[in-house]
Amino acid sequence: MRWPFFTRSKKIGLAPGSLVYTGSKRKNSPRITVFDYTPTTVEEKVCSSVEETFSYRDTKSVTWINIDGIHKIDIIEKIGKHFNIHPLILEDITNTNQRPKVEDLEDMLFIILRMHPNDAMAADFNSEQVSILITKNCVISFQEQEGDLFDSIRERIRTGKGKIRSMGTDYLAYTLIDAVVDNFFFVLEQIGELTENLENEVIENPVPKIVQKLHSLKQNLLFLRKSIWPLREEITKLQRTDSTLISHSTNIYLRDVYDHTIQIIDMVETIRDIITGLLDMYLSNISNKMNEVMKVLTIIATIFIPLTFIAGIYGMNFVNMPELRYKWGYFMVLGLMGIIAIGMLWFFRRKKWL
Amino acid sequence: MRWPFFTRSKKIGLAPGSLVYTGSKRKNSPRITVFDYTPTTVEEKVCSSVEETFSYRDTKSVTWINIDGIHKIDIIEKIGKHFNIHPLILEDITNTNQRPKVEDLEDMLFIILRMHPNDAMAADFNSEQVSILITKNCVISFQEQEGDLFDSIRERIRTGKGKIRSMGTDYLAYTLIDAVVDNFFFVLEQIGELTENLENEVIENPVPKIVQKLHSLKQNLLFLRKSIWPLREEITKLQRTDSTLISHSTNIYLRDVYDHTIQIIDMVETIRDIITGLLDMYLSNISNKMNEVMKVLTIIATIFIPLTFIAGIYGMNFVNMPELRYKWGYFMVLGLMGIIAIGMLWFFRRKKWL
Amino acid sequence: MRWPFFTRSKKIGLAPGSLVYTGSKRKNSPRITVFDYTPTTVEEKVCSSVEETFSYRDTKSVTWINIDGIHKIDIIEKIGKHFNIHPLILEDITNTNQRPKVEDLEDMLFIILRMHPNDAMAADFNSEQVSILITKNCVISFQEQEGDLFDSIRERIRTGKGKIRSMGTDYLAYTLIDAVVDNFFFVLEQIGELTENLENEVIENPVPKIVQKLHSLKQNLLFLRKSIWPLREEITKLQRTDSTLISHSTNIYLRDVYDHTIQIIDMVETIRDIITGLLDMYLSNISNKMNEVMKVLTIIATIFIPLTFIAGIYGMNFVNMPELRYKWGYFMVLGLMGIIAIGMLWFFRRKKWL
Amino acid sequence: MRWPFFTRSKKIGLAPGSLVYTGSKRKNSPRITVFDYTPTTVEEKVCSSVEETFSYRDTKSVTWINIDGIHKIDIIEKIGKHFNIHPLILEDITNTNQRPKVEDLEDMLFIILRMHPNDAMAADFNSEQVSILITKNCVISFQEQEGDLFDSIRERIRTGKGKIRSMGTDYLAYTLIDAVVDNFFFVLEQIGELTENLENEVIENPVPKIVQKLHSLKQNLLFLRKSIWPLREEITKLQRTDSTLISHSTNIYLRDVYDHTIQIIDMVETIRDIITGLLDMYLSNISNKMNEVMKVLTIIATIFIPLTFIAGIYGMNFVNMPELRYKWGYFMVLGLMGIIAIGMLWFFRRKKWL
Amino acid sequence: MRWPFFTRSKKIGLAPGSLVYTGSKRKNSPRITVFDYTPTTVEEKVCSSVEETFSYRDTKSVTWINIDGIHKIDIIEKIGKHFNIHPLILEDITNTNQRPKVEDLEDMLFIILRMHPNDAMAADFNSEQVSILITKNCVISFQEQEGDLFDSIRERIRTGKGKIRSMGTDYLAYTLIDAVVDNFFFVLEQIGELTENLENEVIENPVPKIVQKLHSLKQNLLFLRKSIWPLREEITKLQRTDSTLISHSTNIYLRDVYDHTIQIIDMVETIRDIITGLLDMYLSNISNKMNEVMKVLTIIATIFIPLTFIAGIYGMNFVNMPELRYKWGYFMVLGLMGIIAIGMLWFFRRKKWL
Repeated sequence: MRWPFFTRSKKIGLAPGSLVYTGSKRKNSPRITVFDYTPTTVEEKVCSSVEETFSYRDTKSVTWINIDGIHKIDIIEKIGKHFNIHPLILEDITNTNQRPKVEDLEDMLFIILRMHPNDAMAADFNSEQVSILITKNCVISFQEQEGDLFDSIRERIRTGKGKIRSMGTDYLAYTLIDAVVDNFFFVLEQIGELTENLENEVIENPVPKIVQKLHSLKQNLLFLRKSIWPLREEITKLQRTDSTLISHSTNIYLRDVYDHTIQIIDMVETIRDIITGLLDMYLSNISNKMNEVMKVLTIIATIFIPLTFIAGIYGMNFVNMPELRYKWGYFMVLGLMGIIAIGMLWFFRRKKWL
Repeated sequence: MRWPFFTRSKKIGLAPGSLVYTGSKRKNSPRITVFDYTPTTVEEKVCSSVEETFSYRDTKSVTWINIDGIHKIDIIEKIGKHFNIHPLILEDITNTNQRPKVEDLEDMLFIILRMHPNDAMAADFNSEQVSILITKNCVISFQEQEGDLFDSIRERIRTGKGKIRSMGTDYLAYTLIDAVVDNFFFVLEQIGELTENLENEVIENPVPKIVQKLHSLKQNLLFLRKSIWPLREEITKLQRTDSTLISHSTNIYLRDVYDHTIQIIDMVETIRDIITGLLDMYLSNISNKMNEVMKVLTIIATIFIPLTFIAGIYGMNFVNMPELRYKWGYFMVLGLMGIIAIGMLWFFRRKKWL
Repeated sequence: MRWPFFTRSKKIGLAPGSLVYTGSKRKNSPRITVFDYTPTTVEEKVCSSVEETFSYRDTKSVTWINIDGIHKIDIIEKIGKHFNIHPLILEDITNTNQRPKVEDLEDMLFIILRMHPNDAMAADFNSEQVSILITKNCVISFQEQEGDLFDSIRERIRTGKGKIRSMGTDYLAYTLIDAVVDNFFFVLEQIGELTENLENEVIENPVPKIVQKLHSLKQNLLFLRKSIWPLREEITKLQRTDSTLISHSTNIYLRDVYDHTIQIIDMVETIRDIITGLLDMYLSNISNKMNEVMKVLTIIATIFIPLTFIAGIYGMNFVNMPELRYKWGYFMVLGLMGIIAIGMLWFFRRKKWL
Repeated sequence: MRWPFFTRSKKIGLAPGSLVYTGSKRKNSPRITVFDYTPTTVEEKVCSSVEETFSYRDTKSVTWINIDGIHKIDIIEKIGKHFNIHPLILEDITNTNQRPKVEDLEDMLFIILRMHPNDAMAADFNSEQVSILITKNCVISFQEQEGDLFDSIRERIRTGKGKIRSMGTDYLAYTLIDAVVDNFFFVLEQIGELTENLENEVIENPVPKIVQKLHSLKQNLLFLRKSIWPLREEITKLQRTDSTLISHSTNIYLRDVYDHTIQIIDMVETIRDIITGLLDMYLSNISNKMNEVMKVLTIIATIFIPLTFIAGIYGMNFVNMPELRYKWGYFMVLGLMGIIAIGMLWFFRRKKWL
Repeated sequence: MRWPFFTRSKKIGLAPGSLVYTGSKRKNSPRITVFDYTPTTVEEKVCSSVEETFSYRDTKSVTWINIDGIHKIDIIEKIGKHFNIHPLILEDITNTNQRPKVEDLEDMLFIILRMHPNDAMAADFNSEQVSILITKNCVISFQEQEGDLFDSIRERIRTGKGKIRSMGTDYLAYTLIDAVVDNFFFVLEQIGELTENLENEVIENPVPKIVQKLHSLKQNLLFLRKSIWPLREEITKLQRTDSTLISHSTNIYLRDVYDHTIQIIDMVETIRDIITGLLDMYLSNISNKMNEVMKVLTIIATIFIPLTFIAGIYGMNFVNMPELRYKWGYFMVLGLMGIIAIGMLWFFRRKKWL
């Protein structure tokens, strides 16, 4: 199915906590990468098996385990067992149509985010699920497929630019959330530009296919809204949590993400209102154009119908039709027709129908 | 009556607590089944009379009494008396158009849920009432008719798969609620698929009967919404109850159901918005198509009317019409007509009316 | 005036607490009935003057004084004086367009309810005001006119069926409220049935008068909503009151009424949404039907206009028109016309315009 | 400008607390009246200068100073200085487009109300600002122009009818508020009556000018709503104030005003919904009527076009047209035309197009 | 891009706290002005470099540093370092599409406001960001470009008019906020006047270009709303802050600004509702006018079609057509045509189609 949020049924009838991957079918094996860093050192590794990541659980350095691809249930299960994650959380990770949410599990924080493709006109505007687990020393992130979303963060860790290396797992998690949220701006900017172009088209050349495009944009905004709206409340929850996993100095950054979330919601609403206005304007323009056409055509018909009637009269075959024998009869009738035609045109113009 | 929520009037004028079955008429006698289990043992029984279930009230094992069919008032009354249930609760059980709700009655919890048929296009999209009573040792569930909704739970109890056998009545009640809520996903997935198909039809072949289908889906979503919306708040109530009947370990599962409920509400709202958009797009498409037809037809008429007028002129019978006697008069007129026709076509094309 | 809520102006400029009856004009003298009962005894009396009821104020038995007709201001004033009622409360009783409300006046509770006629299609869908005063030993109820709403309660008191005789004034008041609320179900069921019938008509035979009926139903739902909406909050207020006039055992019954109120609001909203959907579907159907008609008619015209043009050509009177002298000219032209007609029909069909 | 709420710009750039009158231009000098009363005495005076009122500030009797006309800034300034009023409050009094509000200023209460003209169809549906200041011994009220709104209160003070003379400044202020609020009922009753009349017109004779009237009513309701909506919250604020200026016995009267405010908001919403329904019904009726006309006209044309075609055929001048020479040819063709006309009529009727 | 809120993407991938100017491209160098005043002295200075302002940080007098132009990142960075401002705040200052907000940073308050151009019909209705920082002795304000918004405040400081010189930084900040908020009244008044003019045009001469104008106004209102709506809550936050930077005496002025904010929101909503009403009325008027035209034209055609048919009949060439030989046949037919025409006109008039 094309729409992204209708695939829970695979799970119906199973015991709670059963792991079933509900996303699109994928074959390639998941990519597991590890970053382990302190303010002064950094280690980067691509793991061929999930067990390679286990040793990082108890190191004092900050470790970021990123798993691209969650369709191999056994990998998720092994991580779950080693990091001691509740089965329902594992279920949420593999069940890829969760709402964005934050859960505080005493010794860890669990965050679900949603991410949209960069092509705003995509018919297949699926949102992808990004799950983030924060423990004292580790951040484990799960994506449905490989992507370049976190590349700039990787670069910052490698080069030690910014504060990232000197901060803890909470700051790392924040940068991940920030990257996901920033991606919304990118998509919305595209939608905004498309909407501006469509606005010009609506004003200048309102062709029917614009309606389809506007509806498609509106529907994609609907999906965006669904992905960002719950985040607002959930980030507040994260800010107000009394978990020791979020330090005070990170909180001000979360507030910044919160501001961005509201800004995105604002933008979504504004563009939706603009698109609704454009649809109204399109309908008004198209009906106006159609009216003009029909009016002109009807006026042409209306002018010729009485003239044809007159011609019909003098086409009758009565024996006794005096006018027919007048020398200038034909020309008088032609003149009469001309006068009638001009009279009607004048009348229509005075009435502002032309 | 077809709509499911208009049958309370049978009760008007009766004293509160009077039991009257307000659902559809049924004749077969209710089916009563009992599951009684401990972590190590399980007993399954189909009872021929309600009295057979009474002995389970005071056993220490977990007992699940399921009653399919609530139209026999005397059975409900006997259970009410034996299990000491308040008359107003019994009234709610037999009065099959209650809103979903949770009531905390000190020594028991009472839950009403609603369940929809699996056929999303059903004209008769009745919701059925499922009532659940939780006491310390027993769960009593009431359905309007036999169904296979709880079969997977029965299987899990029989085989001892999952945690169900080692947990109490609260967990059993949770699995029942979960099964009912999961059923919504199934129905919504169907509606989602139907909507996608209708979207294609709206774009490619907008025939009038689509409107009826879209309206019918929209109406069914309205009924679904009515059945799921109150559940959100009620499950919160269940989570926050200070009743000792809900243990702390079950609470996290209730939270999971709560998440599902919100997800369902989200899906219902999203599909409703999509259907509204489709209806708008249908109207726009159909009016566009109609406009095209009318425009072409009117243009044909508009081209021939002046030509017919010219033919009419030379069909007049005036004695003195010089052109008629020209040798090439007829062909000149035919030529003139051709020029006028081509001129008009060119004009219409330039105006983008064709 | 027809609408029920525009008659306060009679009161403008008067001092607060002035009694003015603002309902419809009535002439017959109010009917005053008294029920006085204990668990074992019951006394029923029709009073010819209001003074006859005064002696019941201080009896220990439960007394229900019912006054049908509040247009005699002096009766209300006498009761007010004897039972020591605040002038603003008396004003509310006689001023028959109050919102439903509950007021806690230390030694008494004052409740206003609204009640609609049973005929859901009534153009004159006036709601009537029912006021209820609860003191320690008495319930005084005021209706605008005689009705059979409370007959079943009278019967229950007479026969001692149910708990009513063994409970206090709070339970009696509850049964009165319950009777008023139950009446909404009755009206809504009618509206539901009418809506179902109209739905069939909209699908099968969309005639213009349906619009009027749907609008009239929608307007009546508006009035119903206005009468029931505030009740929800007010009954909550009654449940949470710390007045000693409401006993704990009655509270669970109030909760039942509260559930019914929400159910009614739900029903009103659902039917409104359905009716809005029907109006949309009607418009879509009617415009579709109209389009079909216009399309067929226009196609007929479009086929004959070119044919008539050809006939016009050969009706011209040019001296030199070679075809006219061909032996089979006439039949060739007829054939040509046939070919053109069939060609156009084929073209229209291929374009799916027919 | 016609709309009442766009005149703040006169103030832009001025220091806060600068007094500028922003209402309509007026020339006559303000009318200042004083009522000074105790339960037993009453003094009424028209003051020629504002200084005459100053002596009443410290009397123990209740004094009501009413100023009709606030365009003389110096008068407001003198009162402000003598009664020790904060500059921002004086600014609010002269700046005549404030929202209704209540401010608690320790030693005085300040209330702003809005009042609409009695002519509900007025194109110039300006609301006037009424400001009320309550101190321990004085009530000072400011109106934009003279009016008869408070005449009944003056009469009650003069004659000592009701409780007014025996109560304090809070009760006096209440009666002023009550008079302003009651005026809304008067205006709404008018709008209600107009709407009922328009409803009849919409059903019986839907002419275009109804739309204008309905829109004008809807717009006036918008203005009314703007004037009454904030009052609801503000009166609650007044009720809950811990200011000693509002006595407990006046509070129950404020509750009455509060009830009226909600009732007015209810009425405004209800009439707005009704008007929206009427606009829909008008559109539906007018389009239905138009459709009928166009259908009949098109059917007439459709019947005659094939007949004219047949006449055209036998008007052709082919030499060899056998039918022309049949003795009864003419009458056979006439008969054929009759049959075709009747056949088409029968077909149209069967299709229910006629 | 034309719309003002889609430019965050420049920042994607950067570390939080990175300063990037996201507004329109500008070249001129920012203008820095300083006002330093006590109740008795005032110093005004235009600084050529940002360092000139640094010395004012620790003076006891009130200092207002105004920076017009924030596109030179290095200036912002220097100020940030000297005044010890958090990097995220600096980021907000340069990132010119923030929502209005208030942040309490212990030793300073940070306020973001938005300001619209004075031309309400501007296609380019960009809002500009105004950032204000309040410390104990300094107010630093940042504008995107030079403007005359604060000129009246400068004048008041120079001349010492009003209280401004005797108050602290909080009062100065208030006057800045007040100036920005007052500007909204100015823009809204323009929009109000435009709307009134368009209302007249809609009623008297509904031409299509009105739709575009109304939509453009509606869209600009959308942007205004986005700029003012959050301010309401944020100013409340400022009022309730427990920061020592806001003195009690300034609080009453903030309440005044709060009132203005609500008034502006009210106005925006009201004008939006009015414009929506105008759009509806325009559509209704235009369709009514079109209907009139089409009706008249169709009636003309309908009258002539039967007449042309009669003429066609007597244009047939049957040998045996007795009427043709009647002496008065021609005139009888003319008379018949006249009667038919008059009859149809009478019929149409009676049906009220004309």
